[in-house]
Amino acid sequence: MSGNKKINFSSGPAALPPEVLQEASEAIINYNNTGLSILELQHRGKYFEAINDESRALVKELCGLSDDYEVLWLQGGGRLQFAMIPMNFLGEQESAGFIDSGFWAHNAAEYAAYYGNAVTLSSSEKDNHTHLPKWPATVPHDLSYLHFTTNNTIYGTQFPNVPKTNVPLIADMSSDIFSRKMEYRNCAMLYAVAQKNIGAAGVTLVAVNKHLLGNVKRKLPPMLDYSAHAKARSLLNTAPVFGVYTSLLTLRWIKQKGIDTIETESIKKAEILYKEIDRNSLFDCKIGKDDRSKMNVCFGSRDKATDTAFTEYCSVRGITGIDGHRYVGSFRVSLYNAIPLSAVETMVSVMQEFEHEYLKAR
Amino acid sequence: MSGNKKINFSSGPAALPPEVLQEASEAIINYNNTGLSILELQHRGKYFEAINDESRALVKELCGLSDDYEVLWLQGGGRLQFAMIPMNFLGEQESAGFIDSGFWAHNAAEYAAYYGNAVTLSSSEKDNHTHLPKWPATVPHDLSYLHFTTNNTIYGTQFPNVPKTNVPLIADMSSDIFSRKMEYRNCAMLYAVAQKNIGAAGVTLVAVNKHLLGNVKRKLPPMLDYSAHAKARSLLNTAPVFGVYTSLLTLRWIKQKGIDTIETESIKKAEILYKEIDRNSLFDCKIGKDDRSKMNVCFGSRDKATDTAFTEYCSVRGITGIDGHRYVGSFRVSLYNAIPLSAVETMVSVMQEFEHEYLKAR
Repeated sequence: MSGNKKINFSSGPAALPPEVLQEASEAIINYNNTGLSILELQHRGKYFEAINDESRALVKELCGLSDDYEVLWLQGGGRLQFAMIPMNFLGEQESAGFIDSGFWAHNAAEYAAYYGNAVTLSSSEKDNHTHLPKWPATVPHDLSYLHFTTNNTIYGTQFPNVPKTNVPLIADMSSDIFSRKMEYRNCAMLYAVAQKNIGAAGVTLVAVNKHLLGNVKRKLPPMLDYSAHAKARSLLNTAPVFGVYTSLLTLRWIKQKGIDTIETESIKKAEILYKEIDRNSLFDCKIGKDDRSKMNVCFGSRDKATDTAFTEYCSVRGITGIDGHRYVGSFRVSLYNAIPLSAVETMVSVMQEFEHEYLKAR
Repeated sequence: MSGNKKINFSSGPAALPPEVLQEASEAIINYNNTGLSILELQHRGKYFEAINDESRALVKELCGLSDDYEVLWLQGGGRLQFAMIPMNFLGEQESAGFIDSGFWAHNAAEYAAYYGNAVTLSSSEKDNHTHLPKWPATVPHDLSYLHFTTNNTIYGTQFPNVPKTNVPLIADMSSDIFSRKMEYRNCAMLYAVAQKNIGAAGVTLVAVNKHLLGNVKRKLPPMLDYSAHAKARSLLNTAPVFGVYTSLLTLRWIKQKGIDTIETESIKKAEILYKEIDRNSLFDCKIGKDDRSKMNVCFGSRDKATDTAFTEYCSVRGITGIDGHRYVGSFRVSLYNAIPLSAVETMVSVMQEFEHEYLKAR
């Protein structure tokens, strides 16, 4: 099927809506009939300023955040956030709390330990993160903040909601932001890395409450200080122009569709795929039903030998990006917003055909 | 001239070669006939790995760097480098030397002062950077490194070469890398921010000698540690895929053209523009002839009132991006590699016509 559009279930960089790709492609030749490529726009010129302003306002609107929040487009991915968060908000003698729900959550705690005390309040590590860790019954009042990861891309688990907490809550929402209604406002800060539900890769979305910004713990060079970015309206330095622009196109697409509709579709997409995995005699999902992610459906083959065969079977049918994370293996089918229901229906059919042919051949 | 391709003399993000824009635009719909958008490529998949490897090898080839150097594609722009360099290579009790040739060079020193002692060895600040600071006759042997900026985008000055130094030399080459033959090998580390001669904005090119990497001064979280990036072959985290890809397209274009040819053209472009500025009764360049940048030609109007009139005069003729930096004002015409000689010839004609009409009307 070389050249034909593939169904791409990749976990990231991931599929983007075709309308977004079309508009981005055209903008590279001629942005909005300006006679300039989007890649050639000065970040301090009127065209990009408008993109910057509209995209930041849309994030607030879609998340229901008040003007108490600053929205920033940063660079450096989740890992730079893992470092910047404690640099900004964790004093050397202070403690921050972590919910260890998997690799990325764990990494955030490891990075924090360079700057202060990282206290794990709850972990699912001993069960290899095949379920969510329990939300801690009590959170010590003296923690500078509590960090958690709403959706665990590698293990395929997802927290059902964003709880209210007695200390500032900081959430890594990289893989499920804008996929569902959430109490975004319960977070003092939330962040999300492109490219999953926003894109292109190379931008990191941060929304941070001004109250938290008033409490920076170190003298930091401006580039590592959230307050400096906020003061500069997210234009402290050359912006990743194309990443912000593509994110704006994605945000417009999300707004037009509506988060309610996106959430309904997302539930449906996950439902039919998990249903097939549970039914199919060749596959197996180890995640408990209540903890299953609607964004990243992780599953295995009952017989390891079928792993390669199934990947190949999908590949010749134009389905790609289904490999599990290198730490987990087997399969991961990511159902981000840009994946239409029809793609999941195709996947389900292919799983059924594969089972049929496999059982016949045995 | 709305919709028609403009001549874009912007200082950055800046013009890219039309062939690069065309290929990038097509890749957003269908990368190399894979049925996937370049934006949807997994950073750890075979397609992007090939882009990553080829681009890093090309940087070495074009700069004549041996395998003693690691080439990294990072994020965060120059300012994150200003912070990472001292974090990695400047102990708290140690000193680093700086040549203060302008705003960015100055900023690099300011950032370093958060992590150790920043010693300015030479500065042109008192003359508002209208000439290059003298290269220091002696560089103290106990400096951890010496930092300088090869080309000063804001003031329009450029160092003629990259000297050999007795301490590790670190060069910010953001605005003139790949524009001329240079002794890139005299640097222990060099870096360049997109987008000027490479693009798109959102990637930062770093080439660093392994000897320097062996001497990191702090325990740093991996994302801020050059060694960790080098060990991960520049794939520590999600790469800015599109930025690296566009940089690769630019590097291929540079290689095909040849740095010798690019340099010859660059000299010619600068020559005819400075010649017209010096001749034209309305304009004025304050930079001494030996210090003038071939990348950013900064000049003023003899009568401030013509500033707006000339910008408008250019604008209706499809010429854009000529505003001087907000700290300096007047005009800046950037002549990066993607600007053809014909565009500069057009600019010269427009300056002549403008003078003619202006003098006639007076």
